[in-house]
Amino acid sequence: MKRRNFIKGAGLGLAASTTLAAPAIAQSMPEVRWRLTSSFPKSLDTLFGASEVMAKRVAALTDNKFQIRVFAAGEIVPGLQVLDACQAGTVECGHTASYYYFGKDPTFAFMTAVPFGLNTRQINAWLYHGGGQELLQKDLYDEFGVQHFGAGNTGAQMGGWFRKEIKTPEDLNGLKMRIGGFAGNVMSRLGLVPQQIAAGDIYPALEKGTVDAAEWVGPYDDEKLGFHKVAKFYYYPGWWEGSAMLSALVNKKAWDALPPQYQSAFEAACLEGQTWMISKYDAVNSAALKRLLAGGTQLRAFPREVLQACHKAAMDLYADTASRNPRFKKVLDHYMAFQAEQLSWFRLSEYTFDNFMLATSSGARRRT
Amino acid sequence: MKRRNFIKGAGLGLAASTTLAAPAIAQSMPEVRWRLTSSFPKSLDTLFGASEVMAKRVAALTDNKFQIRVFAAGEIVPGLQVLDACQAGTVECGHTASYYYFGKDPTFAFMTAVPFGLNTRQINAWLYHGGGQELLQKDLYDEFGVQHFGAGNTGAQMGGWFRKEIKTPEDLNGLKMRIGGFAGNVMSRLGLVPQQIAAGDIYPALEKGTVDAAEWVGPYDDEKLGFHKVAKFYYYPGWWEGSAMLSALVNKKAWDALPPQYQSAFEAACLEGQTWMISKYDAVNSAALKRLLAGGTQLRAFPREVLQACHKAAMDLYADTASRNPRFKKVLDHYMAFQAEQLSWFRLSEYTFDNFMLATSSGARRRT
Repeated sequence: MKRRNFIKGAGLGLAASTTLAAPAIAQSMPEVRWRLTSSFPKSLDTLFGASEVMAKRVAALTDNKFQIRVFAAGEIVPGLQVLDACQAGTVECGHTASYYYFGKDPTFAFMTAVPFGLNTRQINAWLYHGGGQELLQKDLYDEFGVQHFGAGNTGAQMGGWFRKEIKTPEDLNGLKMRIGGFAGNVMSRLGLVPQQIAAGDIYPALEKGTVDAAEWVGPYDDEKLGFHKVAKFYYYPGWWEGSAMLSALVNKKAWDALPPQYQSAFEAACLEGQTWMISKYDAVNSAALKRLLAGGTQLRAFPREVLQACHKAAMDLYADTASRNPRFKKVLDHYMAFQAEQLSWFRLSEYTFDNFMLATSSGARRRT
Repeated sequence: MKRRNFIKGAGLGLAASTTLAAPAIAQSMPEVRWRLTSSFPKSLDTLFGASEVMAKRVAALTDNKFQIRVFAAGEIVPGLQVLDACQAGTVECGHTASYYYFGKDPTFAFMTAVPFGLNTRQINAWLYHGGGQELLQKDLYDEFGVQHFGAGNTGAQMGGWFRKEIKTPEDLNGLKMRIGGFAGNVMSRLGLVPQQIAAGDIYPALEKGTVDAAEWVGPYDDEKLGFHKVAKFYYYPGWWEGSAMLSALVNKKAWDALPPQYQSAFEAACLEGQTWMISKYDAVNSAALKRLLAGGTQLRAFPREVLQACHKAAMDLYADTASRNPRFKKVLDHYMAFQAEQLSWFRLSEYTFDNFMLATSSGARRRT
């Protein structure tokens, strides 16, 4: 083996010129302590857990010199104020879903999920190699004084929990539903009354009948939140979140003050967050789904007619929003063009492979 | 903002006790230089490029103290001898596809791709949260003296280039085809004559008629290799590579000698390699496909009857191999049980969402 591990600086020049050399070495690895505020409660060990995984990686990459302390929703600021806290410098960084801030500008929704948008693979392609990160950083996040990083994904979410079956688009009319992000604006075009409710408050709202239906993420999280105890029908797909990417936000001044090595550590940790979260959800959702079904939950697919009505409402909302908001229009055009390209490729090998595997395993299941 | 960047050691205790403190600081960041041997030629900027991205990240994470020099296939050892070179310590590490070594033990195939196996999301779930990494490290890679890391994925590959159409399973009989990994053993059960040919030699073999058909990866790579110039029909899906994960291998002694901080840097870089490669392929395949189609390439889906015959041959091969190889059987059972769980979950939201999006965009395309 031709490995050469040799120590530089120490035994060589340092002892001879301590006052010059020592600060140079020490400054390259200063102690930095940051606080991260999460949008999620500790009980959600995947959404919340990702920020712990990222903080652990940053510490390991810097010999514990760069420490990020993770706080759950509400410990520093409420879960839906992570952007504000990062912007104001209350904390150096946060972990959140960008679409929580669609009230400030609906353009934020693209970075998490828009109805009938990109799936998990596709949004990563857009973010890292399709210009998505650069576009939204420059046109949106810079204005809010934060640096953006993709940092986790839930995959395609379930369509949520309903007390009554949804057989036609008219069944959505008048329904009060907890639904996240921009999707509520689509649903309201079909007469649904969307409610923004934080994770921990959804169950009591559903139990008391304050809402008739609620969606969160998927089997693993939804089981933790207990929705199956108060609603029977579990719908799919969550067409408003064909994937939902989480975001790490960093106050710009804090980011610029970091040594390049620590910037690299933070960036690498966020990339790990991406793979860690989606692979964990994929690994644990199946068993949770089985438990839910064993407990009496009934699966229902949204009828095609309902999906089509929702799709039309979404496209109409996009057109209306774009006509009033040039930033939204610019990002929408970019996103939609990219999506069309992605679908033209995914429909070949990816889709036909998955389709064959599902059909074959379904056959195997029926035979047993 | 409550950020506190304070410098530790330097101005405080170091000047007072140079001979003790200086080596302690310096040793935590020693200079380490490794060589990485890749299985791929430089021209394949995604497969080869991933190892450059990883090396760059490792350097950035260690203030350039840990440098990995990347060598293309053939510069140190041939592309199919990366495992051997890492095991022998000729190099510290390599970037390869584990299934190239299925001749040593077919169990290696699980870490890259087996016919009708896990897709990209699913193999990550298996690797990181399903016990796959631990199982194969302990039962396989340890014996070969290397530490394994997932480090990139191509996604579902195309089924390759054929001069004549494949309409029935009988059309595979007697066909000479360049096909990678374990899949050749499945194909030979249908009378196909599989050939192992390195990337750069496939085009001349196809041109001269040494082979009748050839597969590599997908539109972006295949276009670079020029197959469309000598074969007309481009088939999908590549059922033998529903995803193909790349592997970073590290000589065990070199790994154990690394400081924990550098181990963390290498691990984080491999995780980045995963996201970087698949998102790059997803971003660039679509445009390459368009160019190929504009140049006269004709897309063909493998007929269902062909897929079913190949599926049966694969399941028979697995059963036969498992009956002779207890290690293969152990991993096969683990992998197949995990796959069944994955499919039971993916068939809900992921599949129905993708299905709706593809159907809707197909309709939109037809209308224009």
